[in-house]
Amino acid sequence: MIVKHFQRELDKVKKMILSLGALVEQGVHRIKAAIEERNVVLARDIMRLDHEIDEMEVEIEEECLKIIALHQPVAADLRFLIAVVKINNDLERIGDQVVNIAQRVQQIAKQPVAPYQFDYSVMAEKAETMLRMSLDSLVNQDLDMAIEVLKLDDEVDKLKNEAYDRIKQAMADGATKDIGYMINLLLISRHIERLGDHATNIAEEVIYMIEGEIVRHGKLD
Amino acid sequence: MIVKHFQRELDKVKKMILSLGALVEQGVHRIKAAIEERNVVLARDIMRLDHEIDEMEVEIEEECLKIIALHQPVAADLRFLIAVVKINNDLERIGDQVVNIAQRVQQIAKQPVAPYQFDYSVMAEKAETMLRMSLDSLVNQDLDMAIEVLKLDDEVDKLKNEAYDRIKQAMADGATKDIGYMINLLLISRHIERLGDHATNIAEEVIYMIEGEIVRHGKLD
Repeated sequence: MIVKHFQRELDKVKKMILSLGALVEQGVHRIKAAIEERNVVLARDIMRLDHEIDEMEVEIEEECLKIIALHQPVAADLRFLIAVVKINNDLERIGDQVVNIAQRVQQIAKQPVAPYQFDYSVMAEKAETMLRMSLDSLVNQDLDMAIEVLKLDDEVDKLKNEAYDRIKQAMADGATKDIGYMINLLLISRHIERLGDHATNIAEEVIYMIEGEIVRHGKLD
Repeated sequence: MIVKHFQRELDKVKKMILSLGALVEQGVHRIKAAIEERNVVLARDIMRLDHEIDEMEVEIEEECLKIIALHQPVAADLRFLIAVVKINNDLERIGDQVVNIAQRVQQIAKQPVAPYQFDYSVMAEKAETMLRMSLDSLVNQDLDMAIEVLKLDDEVDKLKNEAYDRIKQAMADGATKDIGYMINLLLISRHIERLGDHATNIAEEVIYMIEGEIVRHGKLD
């Protein structure tokens, strides 16, 4: 009976972290559109998600601690619950990055005509894929998929560096006198990259759960 | 006997996290000097700390899990161990920020004469104080000190915004044609601010341990 009860609690926490994941994914998906459309209204709507994300994060951590205290799990179950505490934290921070991007979008959208063309759609798409795959790898305990996330992270890093070079060049060429606009563009690419970093943290936790070996700090490459 | 053994294990983990804290503090202290002196050699030396920090982080997490599995602590002891897992994570990420700053310092130091004067000493000093106070608040379970860290975080944020405005203005005024140099300056201030954010996370964990109430997500202000 107690084992059954424990399993039910584990399932509950699994459902909770996936609900949070779905909410954060929604935010990432919509921020991608907000960047592309320089959509102020959408950016503002997205920022409203953050409060809900914050509350869910607190609830999930409380739930994990309750289960550990009550059922005193060991080995894989304990590892899973600690991983959830950490993944929970990363999801909340992805939410923070989405808010940061939304604020930048509101800034750059102030200008009626974009003084410099940019395209972050590929980069944002990859970051969104990283998040989805990291969560799928968690649900299915899929090692290959988690490793795929780490590879995508390298691609996103590369795209961020390219964006940086392009913006620097455009600024040097005097593409626009609006330095603030250009800096906001630069920062959006950095926020997308950090969003990808948090998805990478999640994937690394999943790999650790499966392999029992720590791959943090780039030990896999 | 088992209780005594458990207490010894807790003390051990406390010592480990403080050793890691001391190492990270050393990195922050030295990076402050590296920024001020635009010191490439120092920046390179500091980057060498990172590997050691990464290894300690992994060891500490393993230790916490071992203790939880073996001694099945509840209430305050469990909360403490989970807090250590999270604080551990933040310390390692502060180490990453130090590396990021070191890389930027190497970039800006390439120019024999600094084309634009900047001073991050106050900001870096405050971030270092935040880290030290967050660790002290952990050791002494000092609520007031932890709250002080949250206040300092607002100050660092303000300094970062001021640095941003100044750099933007200097760029608009054509203070230097070297856009890369200016962007590196901008990014250093952001890395210092993120460093402070991680110290804030640590302080929030300490407050939670003491108060049993979650103050994350700015609920304190």
